[in-house]
Amino acid sequence: MSVATLDTRAGDAKAGRVFLIGAGPGDPDLLTVKALRLIQGAALVVYDRLVSKEIMELIPAAAERIYAGKALGNHHLVQDEINDLLLRLARSGRDVVRLKGGDPFVFGRGSEEALHLARHGIAFEVVPGISAAAGCSTYAGIPLTHRGLATGVRFVTGHLQGERSLDLDWTKLADPEVTLAVYMGLQALPEIAARLMAAGLPADTPAAAVESGTTPRQRRVVGTLATLLDLTAAAGLQAPTLLIIGRVVGLADELDWFGPS
Amino acid sequence: MSVATLDTRAGDAKAGRVFLIGAGPGDPDLLTVKALRLIQGAALVVYDRLVSKEIMELIPAAAERIYAGKALGNHHLVQDEINDLLLRLARSGRDVVRLKGGDPFVFGRGSEEALHLARHGIAFEVVPGISAAAGCSTYAGIPLTHRGLATGVRFVTGHLQGERSLDLDWTKLADPEVTLAVYMGLQALPEIAARLMAAGLPADTPAAAVESGTTPRQRRVVGTLATLLDLTAAAGLQAPTLLIIGRVVGLADELDWFGPS
Ligand SMILES: C[S@@+](CC[C@H](N)C(=O)[O-])C[C@H]1O[C@@H](n2cnc3c(N)ncnc32)[C@H](O)[C@@H]1O
Ligand SMILES: C[S@@+](CC[C@H](N)C(=O)[O-])C[C@H]1O[C@@H](n2cnc3c(N)ncnc32)[C@H](O)[C@@H]1O
Repeated sequence: MSVATLDTRAGDAKAGRVFLIGAGPGDPDLLTVKALRLIQGAALVVYDRLVSKEIMELIPAAAERIYAGKALGNHHLVQDEINDLLLRLARSGRDVVRLKGGDPFVFGRGSEEALHLARHGIAFEVVPGISAAAGCSTYAGIPLTHRGLATGVRFVTGHLQGERSLDLDWTKLADPEVTLAVYMGLQALPEIAARLMAAGLPADTPAAAVESGTTPRQRRVVGTLATLLDLTAAAGLQAPTLLIIGRVVGLADELDWFGPS
Repeated sequence: MSVATLDTRAGDAKAGRVFLIGAGPGDPDLLTVKALRLIQGAALVVYDRLVSKEIMELIPAAAERIYAGKALGNHHLVQDEINDLLLRLARSGRDVVRLKGGDPFVFGRGSEEALHLARHGIAFEVVPGISAAAGCSTYAGIPLTHRGLATGVRFVTGHLQGERSLDLDWTKLADPEVTLAVYMGLQALPEIAARLMAAGLPADTPAAAVESGTTPRQRRVVGTLATLLDLTAAAGLQAPTLLIIGRVVGLADELDWFGPS
């Protein structure tokens, strides 16, 4: 691993390695074989809020666990602090299992952590995970692509970062041929639906929301771009919820293999 | 599973179930726990060309294997024949492990198979897999999203279906803020690169091609939209190859944890 040789300070020869691991959307059966092996062998785990409790239970009882979401009392760690925490732990000579929901390189800021480690000469590996878009859609009976219904899929985030409105190119997003998987989009659903319709996506475009997808707590709401907001409000859906917009959602009832929700 | 109750013919009470399983991009360590368990317990496997040999070796020696790519002599099964084969096998009372590369619901036609089974009352489950976009990019040191470099990612297919030129909305695709993961795009790379540049994507946009990603045979070529064609030709890259286009590719050297390629 070339990154390990960048840093020549004496101490780092004995530095630990960091495993940036995707834990998938929740179902422990969707962990990769590599992720499961690393979790079961972990002595030190730094984990995010979105890692399901079923997966947390797989960590050995003796392992130290550090919650990166809110580690210091009520103070949420900001990304820089998480980056530095990982660096510090690795420099102390310990291997670190860094557990993230879904896939670490999809809206997970895993690459910011990896970059910080690489730039400081710490060796790391990345274990891809089933991302929410793949897991939640499949367990909701919705394919991301389907001949004649979607030529592709777009992952987008609906997270409002300080700004009061989303900074997205709505004309490019409003494409009836492309499935949209919207992460962190529940709060901004009113704006997302309105903007997509204004940009020309038909109001009757099928649309779904999947809460806690792939877990025993999964709830699924299926409607259209025009109705989804009311339906999610009526059902009281909360985070984590993934939105799926596009004609593929029209298959959700026929393909609902995971059971009623 | 509600689909199982749709069909009331006597015989189907004893029909087998079909497990539509994503085998991931190649590394057996990226199989999900559920996929590995089902593969190791399989008596009958219908598999595609893209399932890696390392994964094929995990199938029990006693299991029957049917190659869906070219099962009848030199005649490639068309999708309708594969659909019918799965139906026939399940109706004969046998459980079927249907192994597909990557994720069955991402450019895998898994949903066409699922729909055919559902419409004929056969119970099925779908096991999501690590899709080529996630696996190949991560093993090539490329995050699909990264703050400041990509606000999202788009999966698109570059497969020419009979037509002589790709039927894609190039204006919508040419977005410097969005990573493009192009499946089956190697052959059409000349057209893809030219059209994206004509639609306004800068010629110096970083771009990569990953052949046989996540396997010991992985090869990675990194350049720009303008240079990628010559680089892949010089390297002699062949299918399966995934193209990744976007500013995130600029991180590939710093994040190249999987080793030189
Ligand atoms: C910060 S992003 C992390 C995404 C993660 N890296 C991935 O690849 O899935 C968090 C968002 O992912 C989505 N998400 C993750 N897990 C989910 C689940 N089990 N059910 C529904 N949505 C989920 C939600 O939209 C949530 O707000
Ligand atoms: C018919 S598509 C199937 C995609 C699959 N369902 C998935 O989710 O990855 C086949 C294309 O996937 C890409 N692909 C699959 N496995 C790959 C690998 N190991 N390395 C590079 N590309 C791969 C290539 O672009 C290939 O042409």
